Amino acid sequence: GFPGFSAPPAQDPMWGYFTAIAGQDGEVDAEELQRCLTQTGISGNYTPFSLETCRIMIAMLDRDYTGKMGFNEFKELFAVLNGWKQNFVMVDRDCSGTVEPHEMSQCLANMGYRISPQALNAIIKRYSRSGKIYFDDYVACCVRLRALTDNFRRRDTMQQGMVNFQYDDFILCTMSL
Amino acid sequence: GFPGFSAPPAQDPMWGYFTAIAGQDGEVDAEELQRCLTQTGISGNYTPFSLETCRIMIAMLDRDYTGKMGFNEFKELFAVLNGWKQNFVMVDRDCSGTVEPHEMSQCLANMGYRISPQALNAIIKRYSRSGKIYFDDYVACCVRLRALTDNFRRRDTMQQGMVNFQYDDFILCTMSL
Repeated sequence: GFPGFSAPPAQDPMWGYFTAIAGQDGEVDAEELQRCLTQTGISGNYTPFSLETCRIMIAMLDRDYTGKMGFNEFKELFAVLNGWKQNFVMVDRDCSGTVEPHEMSQCLANMGYRISPQALNAIIKRYSRSGKIYFDDYVACCVRLRALTDNFRRRDTMQQGMVNFQYDDFILCTMSL
Repeated sequence: GFPGFSAPPAQDPMWGYFTAIAGQDGEVDAEELQRCLTQTGISGNYTPFSLETCRIMIAMLDRDYTGKMGFNEFKELFAVLNGWKQNFVMVDRDCSGTVEPHEMSQCLANMGYRISPQALNAIIKRYSRSGKIYFDDYVACCVRLRALTDNFRRRDTMQQGMVNFQYDDFILCTMSL
């Protein structure tokens, strides 16, 4: 296309896929996203993809707090999800569909997060079931960590690794995830 | 009992109930809590109580990050849950098992939270399904709001409604919920 002019959605190969999922209102909500991700089999099994995880994925990208995703957010989400999936598969060497706690630390380090052992331990406890981390819980963890880190950085204008939060702002940027 | 001496667990009416749920290891994990809450019918229907909500209820009380609850935490949880249930029932006048968005604002105000319209809007979007808030999502919201507010207050030693967070501490006290 011309400089500064992006292709109209109709020419984008993902547009047809998006409209089929979005239905009448032209936006994707958590239930629609759940159906779509369950069908893609991205979690490596045939159980439904967690609705809870779908809700926070939408919250991560939903800057206007409508609870729904438009086409650009949908594409952004798939790009991010593919990166996380590759990271997961690389660490899950026996293809069990789960990673071990120590592998989870490796996953987060691969993504460039520097987190203390204490915080890492709390995160792993929170996202494990019977001592293992399943793909959709891993995604829920990645979504929150990414969105919380973004929210923090946006406020850390001096890049000092420290932010002064007012109570209401703290609640806004943590409770919506 | 004597001053400063609490009854041994064996004499507490909830002890038998607790041990039946906790099983061999003597502590309650998220799956055990889910079974127990589904059986009590606390959500007003017979669908399983959300496992995700059970996990964050345990995280709220789990100060040593073991992912499990002992007897005292179990009793504390039931007391807190009963308070939330009463609040929910008071607002859900038609006994539908759900509350409307504007009723949710009322619920949170009843609990003494003072939250801006913008944060309230984000919270309600996050915990609604098809425009309504179900009991277990309401509980998940209450758990997070209580735990995040506690975490904030504990750091706000001057009670100024403002806290200086280091990145790692911010991640620790938000990602474990």
